Amino acid sequence: MLKLYYAIGSCAQASHITLEEAGAPYETVRLDLAAGDQDKPDYRAINPKGRVPSLVTDRGILTETPAILVYIAQSFPAARLAPFDDPFALGKVQSFNAYLCATVHVAHAHGARGIRWADSQASLDDMKKKVPQTMGDCFALIERDMIAGPWVMGDAYTICDPYLFTIAGWLKRDGVDIERFPKVAEHRRRMEARPAVKKVLEGYRAAAA
Amino acid sequence: MLKLYYAIGSCAQASHITLEEAGAPYETVRLDLAAGDQDKPDYRAINPKGRVPSLVTDRGILTETPAILVYIAQSFPAARLAPFDDPFALGKVQSFNAYLCATVHVAHAHGARGIRWADSQASLDDMKKKVPQTMGDCFALIERDMIAGPWVMGDAYTICDPYLFTIAGWLKRDGVDIERFPKVAEHRRRMEARPAVKKVLEGYRAAAA
Repeated sequence: MLKLYYAIGSCAQASHITLEEAGAPYETVRLDLAAGDQDKPDYRAINPKGRVPSLVTDRGILTETPAILVYIAQSFPAARLAPFDDPFALGKVQSFNAYLCATVHVAHAHGARGIRWADSQASLDDMKKKVPQTMGDCFALIERDMIAGPWVMGDAYTICDPYLFTIAGWLKRDGVDIERFPKVAEHRRRMEARPAVKKVLEGYRAAAA
Repeated sequence: MLKLYYAIGSCAQASHITLEEAGAPYETVRLDLAAGDQDKPDYRAINPKGRVPSLVTDRGILTETPAILVYIAQSFPAARLAPFDDPFALGKVQSFNAYLCATVHVAHAHGARGIRWADSQASLDDMKKKVPQTMGDCFALIERDMIAGPWVMGDAYTICDPYLFTIAGWLKRDGVDIERFPKVAEHRRRMEARPAVKKVLEGYRAAAA
């Protein structure tokens, strides 16, 4: 059985929702990042990067959200979560997810994790101050050019959707009003109505209570 | 015919080498980033993010290195550049490339592109100062845990190899001695001996002359 290591509020939510959507048999292990669970030796043995998500499979461990999402989609083809028979369409899916991973998530991380890239408190404050602008710019581009509608790739729900949903969920704490981006806001509401999303979020609320 | 927009010294080199390795029919368009080609309206119409690489296909345009690499590999299966028939093996390839894209490339970018994430000169200087440490940490992890040898994934050359080669090529200017990482250094020499790599690098030298 697959085992997902996750933390509430992290990008692991995208993999968690995708496991649900795929109908995969899986279990989860919750890490408390504030308590430093990701730095404990037991977890570093699973993921030496000390990040979530990690997906333990019967073949070994996978990390990095775009990789895990494609792995789940390919392993459970009946759920049709990615267009593996069409290299260009798969390329568009991957391009979107790479942008979320390498640009949007990174922009967000400068709010609370600036210590990864600079040392002085003034630098960290400067980075944090810029997050509403950088996240706003990212989502302006997503709104204008990247959402075909009703799902990210058009009529087909794909592994882009839970990933966008997860990162768009950070906008409020990043000081960006999601309603500036009507397609993103509508996408968010559409996602919240899906049974898989409801189940995962209800689990998070129960775990955090 | 495929058309690759690239810049010398950029991560587009990974896609360029992969087109060669795949035996793909392609042409290239070189951008001069120092001259701001990436911000000109003609190029923004191709890639609104103003980055390289962009790959123009007969179906549309793809951006983001991990997406382009998988697209080339899937479009030219005879070159066997990625294990599409094995979800876990493909997941390992993708995990490696996502790490390069979202962590290692991002660490490097804080040297010259810190303005993406902070505004004050002191912050930019602080970021720049930390690059040798962050890039060194990334490559220490790659050296210890991520290179199976002789290629990144083991006996099979994959789309991980030109990407690692490209980013490892930035270590010198990032103030990191590649010889601290014997497997990475050996991988670099092995890559330099490949005809596809020689051809691309000779083209760059000619273009820059």
